[in-house]
Amino acid sequence: MNQSIGLVKTESVTFDVELKLESGRVLGPITLAYETYGTLNRDRSNAILVTHAWTGDAHAAGRHSEEDRKPGWWDDMIGPGKVLDTNRYFILCSNVIGSCKGSTGPTSLNPRTDRPYNLSFPVLMVRDMVRAQKLLLDHLNISSLVTVIGGSMGAMQALEWGILYPEVPRSIIPIAGTGRTSPMAIALNSLARQAIFNDPMWKKGNYKPEHPPADGMTLARAVGHVSFLSDASMHLKFGRRFSARDGLFDFFGRFEVERYLEYNGSSFVDRFDTNSFLYLAKALDLYDVAWNFDGLEEALTNLQCPSLWFAFTSDWLYPPSQTEEVVDVLTRLGKPVAYHLIDSDYGHDSFLVEPEKFTPLVVEFLDRLTSGA
Amino acid sequence: MNQSIGLVKTESVTFDVELKLESGRVLGPITLAYETYGTLNRDRSNAILVTHAWTGDAHAAGRHSEEDRKPGWWDDMIGPGKVLDTNRYFILCSNVIGSCKGSTGPTSLNPRTDRPYNLSFPVLMVRDMVRAQKLLLDHLNISSLVTVIGGSMGAMQALEWGILYPEVPRSIIPIAGTGRTSPMAIALNSLARQAIFNDPMWKKGNYKPEHPPADGMTLARAVGHVSFLSDASMHLKFGRRFSARDGLFDFFGRFEVERYLEYNGSSFVDRFDTNSFLYLAKALDLYDVAWNFDGLEEALTNLQCPSLWFAFTSDWLYPPSQTEEVVDVLTRLGKPVAYHLIDSDYGHDSFLVEPEKFTPLVVEFLDRLTSGA
Repeated sequence: MNQSIGLVKTESVTFDVELKLESGRVLGPITLAYETYGTLNRDRSNAILVTHAWTGDAHAAGRHSEEDRKPGWWDDMIGPGKVLDTNRYFILCSNVIGSCKGSTGPTSLNPRTDRPYNLSFPVLMVRDMVRAQKLLLDHLNISSLVTVIGGSMGAMQALEWGILYPEVPRSIIPIAGTGRTSPMAIALNSLARQAIFNDPMWKKGNYKPEHPPADGMTLARAVGHVSFLSDASMHLKFGRRFSARDGLFDFFGRFEVERYLEYNGSSFVDRFDTNSFLYLAKALDLYDVAWNFDGLEEALTNLQCPSLWFAFTSDWLYPPSQTEEVVDVLTRLGKPVAYHLIDSDYGHDSFLVEPEKFTPLVVEFLDRLTSGA
Repeated sequence: MNQSIGLVKTESVTFDVELKLESGRVLGPITLAYETYGTLNRDRSNAILVTHAWTGDAHAAGRHSEEDRKPGWWDDMIGPGKVLDTNRYFILCSNVIGSCKGSTGPTSLNPRTDRPYNLSFPVLMVRDMVRAQKLLLDHLNISSLVTVIGGSMGAMQALEWGILYPEVPRSIIPIAGTGRTSPMAIALNSLARQAIFNDPMWKKGNYKPEHPPADGMTLARAVGHVSFLSDASMHLKFGRRFSARDGLFDFFGRFEVERYLEYNGSSFVDRFDTNSFLYLAKALDLYDVAWNFDGLEEALTNLQCPSLWFAFTSDWLYPPSQTEEVVDVLTRLGKPVAYHLIDSDYGHDSFLVEPEKFTPLVVEFLDRLTSGA
């Protein structure tokens, strides 16, 4: 029953618009890369929007070719008979603007100069990403969503959908999110930023794609990894083991955890554009659901649909208290809200590493929601 | 009553030894910088050894000149009528080997080459630092210590003293320490290391002192700062405030927390040698009190004197659980041990920021210890 969705293809659509951004600047034209799985029903009411995290993309499920070594990033979740069941739902995932995975971002050509935007790309907020996604929904003639579901930056998008377009989602499911990033999260991103700025290859964003600032990007990704893991998960995975190749008393000798961070960081350089990484980090730092509202309460008053929230005990990047801050206000406002604190040792990454700990609750929530509709 | 100790001077002594290190290598001659406050009594029994943290030095109290803007790093603690009362005790603080504050370290001349050691300096463990301190105690003809007290790396030294020379300290007071650094702490140090390695000015450690790898060192220090603070202390200190000088939507615009990290990191470059920073980071990573013993229990069996331990609720670098691991074993072994978990929002830095929260317990402990002696 739980099968793969099989071969899929990334689609792309370009909107000849000038999207007004939160910064006051405009962005256009806007290209969005997206994938869909399952079939839209006759009254176009069975669509689910999946929102991705920082370095994610539109490729959430299936494989692009038979030779593909790895399926989409949430393949465990999406497919026939799976949590997001393609026999029932039409699943849509689009790459956010600012990214480098097919949607308009710093690597795109600036139509005013016919050269890549690089740092002339405007600073974005998560809210801008959601506005761009709305263009796609309109294009697909989808005016109602069963739910918007995503983790981390995906959770932020889900909440923004609920606040900004309350008539569209019939529910939202923010996972491992926050109502606003904390100074600790900003501080960690600032370390990643500085690592890149320090790399002479970065050239203030004007590096050639074939000569990215690899050292800076490797370190920046390592900073991210540290914040995605937890003390407990590092103990489980590495302990204090020393690299078998290195001498304990070599100056350059490394513990296993160190080797892992370097290795994973460096493999990331080829996978993601540095400027995109920086722009999305900035969007994360700027994230505050109360932005342009009189406060958290006023912002959350706009949410009309039921919301289902998950936080993870060992997540110290967006700790449970930050989700609870939002949930508490929603509860006080009398909104239909459910919250589950999931016991997991895998830090912020828990939502990717141990989905089985929360997915039954998602299935139950969606069943109740759609049976009641 | 609580007065400053006044003007003090850093002393220095050189030992013409070949100290056998844990790595199997030897180090010598060894110079140690140290300061003393108060008077050694006739039977030489009133000495207290103060051990410093990562980037600390021998200058723990008083001022070097009338013009000195800041007193020694633990001046609040040391002086007439203070917690470590110089009317009663003879206080000794020495700079660790590997440092750059007067003791033999990577900036010292290698007698074999007459050039600075740089990376030919041997990798050290905290145990080696303590062995070098023992030379100083012997030199000063002090064979018994009222206590060894220190925070962070200072706590590690205090414990090593108790294990390695059980006949010398009559008590130890490790504050905000750990029995062994966790993979999380190692991971954070690895980020700092990589930041320096990435800086072309580092030149594999062969930079000129007047041209240090400033960008890398600034970032490395910022990594440290993040780990010394806490989510709560950052909220108190910075919140999500944006730098008044920058535009919210400037690509290079900074939150206050980011500006603080950069500023403090860059002011550190002139204060501390980069290679010393790296060698001491390595010693922290390698720290495991069970090193060369059959395990934690066997190591701690050697401790003969009472020990007083402090951990801080918001310390996520060396979290309370790590102190508790050691305290639990000591308790099981029937050793005289006292432990206090101090409620503080200031993270690992709590022991420097809010000493008043634990110092009354130190005074009480020392009073009981010395009255019983």
